[in-house]
Amino acid sequence: MTHELRKRGTSQFAFRLIANDGAARLGEIETPRGRVRTPAFMPVGTQATVKGMYPGEVRATGADIVLANTYHLMLRPGPERIADLGGLHAFMNWPHPILTDSGGFQVMSLASLRKITDAGVTFRSHLDGTMYELTPERAIEIQLLLGADIVMQLDECVKLPATRAEIERGVRLSLVWAERCRRAFERAPLGRALFGIVQGGDDATLRLESVRPLVDMGFDGYAIGGLAVGEPQAVMLRMVEEVAPVLPADRPRYLMGVGTPEDLVEAVARGMDMFDCVMPTRNGRHGLAFTRFGPINLKNARHADDPRPLDAESACPAARDYSRAYLHHLVKANEMLGAMLLTAVNLTYYQDLMAGMRAAIGERRFGDFQLATRELWARGDIPAL
Amino acid sequence: MTHELRKRGTSQFAFRLIANDGAARLGEIETPRGRVRTPAFMPVGTQATVKGMYPGEVRATGADIVLANTYHLMLRPGPERIADLGGLHAFMNWPHPILTDSGGFQVMSLASLRKITDAGVTFRSHLDGTMYELTPERAIEIQLLLGADIVMQLDECVKLPATRAEIERGVRLSLVWAERCRRAFERAPLGRALFGIVQGGDDATLRLESVRPLVDMGFDGYAIGGLAVGEPQAVMLRMVEEVAPVLPADRPRYLMGVGTPEDLVEAVARGMDMFDCVMPTRNGRHGLAFTRFGPINLKNARHADDPRPLDAESACPAARDYSRAYLHHLVKANEMLGAMLLTAVNLTYYQDLMAGMRAAIGERRFGDFQLATRELWARGDIPAL
Repeated sequence: MTHELRKRGTSQFAFRLIANDGAARLGEIETPRGRVRTPAFMPVGTQATVKGMYPGEVRATGADIVLANTYHLMLRPGPERIADLGGLHAFMNWPHPILTDSGGFQVMSLASLRKITDAGVTFRSHLDGTMYELTPERAIEIQLLLGADIVMQLDECVKLPATRAEIERGVRLSLVWAERCRRAFERAPLGRALFGIVQGGDDATLRLESVRPLVDMGFDGYAIGGLAVGEPQAVMLRMVEEVAPVLPADRPRYLMGVGTPEDLVEAVARGMDMFDCVMPTRNGRHGLAFTRFGPINLKNARHADDPRPLDAESACPAARDYSRAYLHHLVKANEMLGAMLLTAVNLTYYQDLMAGMRAAIGERRFGDFQLATRELWARGDIPAL
Repeated sequence: MTHELRKRGTSQFAFRLIANDGAARLGEIETPRGRVRTPAFMPVGTQATVKGMYPGEVRATGADIVLANTYHLMLRPGPERIADLGGLHAFMNWPHPILTDSGGFQVMSLASLRKITDAGVTFRSHLDGTMYELTPERAIEIQLLLGADIVMQLDECVKLPATRAEIERGVRLSLVWAERCRRAFERAPLGRALFGIVQGGDDATLRLESVRPLVDMGFDGYAIGGLAVGEPQAVMLRMVEEVAPVLPADRPRYLMGVGTPEDLVEAVARGMDMFDCVMPTRNGRHGLAFTRFGPINLKNARHADDPRPLDAESACPAARDYSRAYLHHLVKANEMLGAMLLTAVNLTYYQDLMAGMRAAIGERRFGDFQLATRELWARGDIPAL
């Protein structure tokens, strides 16, 4: 069964490792919807839209794949409806690869009255109070109805800090659900991929206990979940250091919900291939720009009279063709265009960073790239005269 | 003085009447920033941005000119600041013509503690409570600091219904201010234009009493103000019928704050050349699409499963490349992309309507165009099967 699944899953879904530089990996995921160059950053399109961006614009930033959230889409507009409309790609006018999460994480953070049992999780919709049940089987069914190219197992993501007992329960439940998801996924059409998720909180032993059974089950890719949930960066990176080496080298590795530009560089240095985070989009909507010279808060009054663009050398029109004074004005005036421009700036910067890492790994100069990138961040933004 | 002003004003600003069809006029305004084809619809860019649209996108809808609001910009970010930053065109990344209003209308509708005297109006900012004074001279100064191509006189716009005494006062005050604006505008750089505003509420006699002194003063264009402020459409059109014929044929005529697609067609039929209105942008943000087949409310549940685009034959990607089901979802989910797409749909439809009117007037078939347009509107939207 495992072998069959794997064979079926990889006949149109495939990961090719192109180069290593230390632990950092340059690769390529093939899907029926197109190629994903790794290391890859996936912009978050929670409700079937990357907030404030046209899909063509998201593509133009350099994104090969976006993430959409099962929890939101199961509540509204509903996976059966999206399937009837031709699937999520057609629905959101994004013909390229899509990864969907399993819904589990957001049930924990957004829904009320949630109750977790071995069977799954029941919860009350934050929108209209309707009760829902999300089982491993339903999580897979929903993601297949959506038409996701990469499907995630249902897992229990424990927020940190947590007791060892809580973390252990998360590991155990996630493994039980992994196996049920794997079975449910046997009905998946050709070319879809299923990723298993390693849990284990900030406990290296539990992390390793989580990895082995998952790898034995056989997934098309492996995610590290339950990080970037409140722990210090050093803890997150230590967990990555423990887990990445024991993951199969021929499968993509996805660090869920991460992170800052620095997190991305550090995690790539430790062998991770895929990332998603709301940081560039959410912070863009709140006036924060990510740039080669570190973050710039456009709300700050020092920008009010600054005629300079955020980065005159950027290929991104939003970073190049609008003054900081104008961006400051738009942010202060709460204008949509401010959120649109800063989201574009941030997603472009994130993709530029990934492209820079890919090029550096390919040329075996990732260490130099890390140093140079850190130097620019440390230089910081130069205020107007 | 009048002669000098006119001469200076038209040396780079000029209006050319190309064709008449009945009272409808096809024309062209030349400005140093480019050409405005009339009849023209001006999208509203209140705070130096057409809400939810990139400037390049506004241009792509067919807009030759946008309107910006003096009231908002004088409060934030301030006209002196915009001037220091190179003017409004550079600030908002819109190199094409800009018309600014005088601020008067929005002082009346948004500011508190306003006090009107012959000298001008004092008011408290709705943003931070600061007291401001707006005189005819300051209104001109602000608009010149912004760098507007077309500057509007300060006027008193009386909301309807109003007593004859209130309307009379508005007419008298607006005429006094018109003359002071005209004098203040003598300092304007070459190529800028100043428009006078006809007041008079819903009283034809007062309207005509307002026109004659204005025309004697000599302006580069004439606006009809104080309509679309609560009166029935028939009253508005009757006022236009009274006023338009006595306005100089060789100057552009601007009907302020108008209107629905039908208003535009009816006002063009009565000799008006320029329009502005928040309707396409504001309604777009609230889920209403204007189309060839009349308005379509995307909030309506009937769209939830409708795979059809709003108008498969539209040149506008927003009308063509996204299903009604998706637009419905975005609107219900309060996603920015819904507002962005519907704003684009609406501004494109408005510009298509203007382009259709211009072509029809040029070919002396405006009557047929009116009939055909009304027929499509009357047909209405065809619901999904």
